[in-house]
Amino acid sequence: MSIWSKEDSTFMAQAIRLAEKGLYTTDPNPRVGCVLVKDGFVVGKGFHVRAGEPHAEVYALNEAGEKAKGATAYVTLEPCSHLGRTPPCAEGLINAGVTRVVAAMQDPNPLVAGRGLQMLADAGVEVESGLLEAQARALNPGFIKRMECGRPFVRLKMAMSLDGRTAMQSGESQWITGASARQDVQRLRGRSSAIITGIGSVQLDDPALTVRTLIDEQTEASHYRQPIRCVLDATGKMSATANILKQPGRTLWFTQGERSMPGAEVISAEVLDGKIDLSWLLTFLAETEQCNEVLVETGAQLAGSFIEQNLVDELIIYMAPTLLGSSARPLLNLPLHNMQQQKRLHLLDVRQLGEDCRFTYRFSTEAA
Amino acid sequence: MSIWSKEDSTFMAQAIRLAEKGLYTTDPNPRVGCVLVKDGFVVGKGFHVRAGEPHAEVYALNEAGEKAKGATAYVTLEPCSHLGRTPPCAEGLINAGVTRVVAAMQDPNPLVAGRGLQMLADAGVEVESGLLEAQARALNPGFIKRMECGRPFVRLKMAMSLDGRTAMQSGESQWITGASARQDVQRLRGRSSAIITGIGSVQLDDPALTVRTLIDEQTEASHYRQPIRCVLDATGKMSATANILKQPGRTLWFTQGERSMPGAEVISAEVLDGKIDLSWLLTFLAETEQCNEVLVETGAQLAGSFIEQNLVDELIIYMAPTLLGSSARPLLNLPLHNMQQQKRLHLLDVRQLGEDCRFTYRFSTEAA
Repeated sequence: MSIWSKEDSTFMAQAIRLAEKGLYTTDPNPRVGCVLVKDGFVVGKGFHVRAGEPHAEVYALNEAGEKAKGATAYVTLEPCSHLGRTPPCAEGLINAGVTRVVAAMQDPNPLVAGRGLQMLADAGVEVESGLLEAQARALNPGFIKRMECGRPFVRLKMAMSLDGRTAMQSGESQWITGASARQDVQRLRGRSSAIITGIGSVQLDDPALTVRTLIDEQTEASHYRQPIRCVLDATGKMSATANILKQPGRTLWFTQGERSMPGAEVISAEVLDGKIDLSWLLTFLAETEQCNEVLVETGAQLAGSFIEQNLVDELIIYMAPTLLGSSARPLLNLPLHNMQQQKRLHLLDVRQLGEDCRFTYRFSTEAA
Repeated sequence: MSIWSKEDSTFMAQAIRLAEKGLYTTDPNPRVGCVLVKDGFVVGKGFHVRAGEPHAEVYALNEAGEKAKGATAYVTLEPCSHLGRTPPCAEGLINAGVTRVVAAMQDPNPLVAGRGLQMLADAGVEVESGLLEAQARALNPGFIKRMECGRPFVRLKMAMSLDGRTAMQSGESQWITGASARQDVQRLRGRSSAIITGIGSVQLDDPALTVRTLIDEQTEASHYRQPIRCVLDATGKMSATANILKQPGRTLWFTQGERSMPGAEVISAEVLDGKIDLSWLLTFLAETEQCNEVLVETGAQLAGSFIEQNLVDELIIYMAPTLLGSSARPLLNLPLHNMQQQKRLHLLDVRQLGEDCRFTYRFSTEAA
């Protein structure tokens, strides 16, 4: 294993910050950044913006021009070795005369991992991998999960009162979190490939589930995609007048049998005990729709099912400074009977957003 | 109103840090600090340690000796003007030749507020009040509340899961928070004059409710008092073998009729609808026991009553990274029926303690 210099870390950190600029746009591709350095000076830099457009390395090489000769490339992901919509980046680096490549991580696809680095090494380029790997993996939890497991990274987002309630017993509810928390949800939506909700939430709240205003100073986001909206509705209760059917972008209606719905693509779903099979759903979204990160925005019933089946990777809770009392509706429909069944989580982050707090928890301690 | 210099603020901040050293010991007196400054140099400093021992000003004047002549005194609370167990501090400052006194706040007792400052002014001392007043008030929320309202400052502390639950439906429970949160509770107990609990909690958990290990780097606490333990038990269900009866310090048993209980002082309590009258209780603790801050450590039933009757000043929640599910016991027994009845709070502070989070909320926005 190599020991990297402080300079190496600094340039790789810069490449990671560049990669973050693609947070809302690269999907289904990974977010990748690249910095070319010669004699201690940055001579080229780039990040991947959008699928079908050049990879990060191409922008950096173009900027560097002749200065790429003898330079070191810092890339947040192993350069590709295969001919896709763009020529392989490993080849581009070799042709430009780059003499050293430091990658933060290998390609997460086990079938091609290491091939790009091997191609570089075979051409006599000095090759290293693993610098700031945890930070680089954090850029692409969904892309990595999909490549490694054939499933998307599942983020469950919920808003609750201080005493863990979401609405009064009667169903009466209102925005309990403030503007800052709601803007934060826009960022969660913006980075997601798809949003999953249940027919119950559609009937109760009639949400649009779109990205409306995306403000993120780190990425200076002005462009974003609309994530695919997925409604789980095994028994076909969706009303043709639902808001979710009238939004820009795609709505997938997961149901059974021969149905049609203007404004939605109908997906004939696998069903288990009368409900959409969530494992099947996630595999479908990864394989057919190339979804990397999916956001579950729904009620206590479906959210409880995701947790009960251990399908959630990350739980994000917005907690409002209010008590709704003991007869109000619970956060999750999740009946557990003894302490051994409790679901322990790992706290990643706490942040104050106005008068609300946001918590980020991981269900596994795996650094995905 | 005076405009204070940056130097004034610096010295007052120092006096406040000194006052904090009395956090666990001054009860029922307030925490007070004093700094004496001459020609820009600190010539004397002190803080009140324990009732019956000298006030902060006395320590500072003793340290300064002759240098007190012409000095400025920064005190976190208006110097006293009455002869108590110690001579009035206003007189001491005058006799020592102090020429300027800056107080962070006036005496909170409306009957004597301003008298100490007046005595100083009458003697020709330059007098100012109000510098860093909010910080100074935060030193003594209980003393101030008792002086201003005839009641203690009520802090309700609860530990819960992420989904707002405290134990399984069966009553099965276990420590859900970690060591760091539990140590933090020791500090809450240590600063309290009394701890209030219900007979239900005593029967279920058989707690000791004592201060065991108090670690606080800010105060270098090595000495502490045991807060008075108060058990609310209108119908006299307490068992003579309860742990709480065998601890150092005092246990008050609030009940009805002629009873006795070895290890407890029996208090004949006022009862309302079969329960101890909480308003009466708080007045009793302030007036008879001179309690400044009281800590409520109890179950969902009594905690819910305190909140329902709007008797809580500060709510402290320790949240463990676990889900106990929707059939587990709720945080509070607090039935509310519509969104208008919700209890909104004001978030003062969030802190991560190991894998747990601690929240501090105020019910009123009053800067007590």
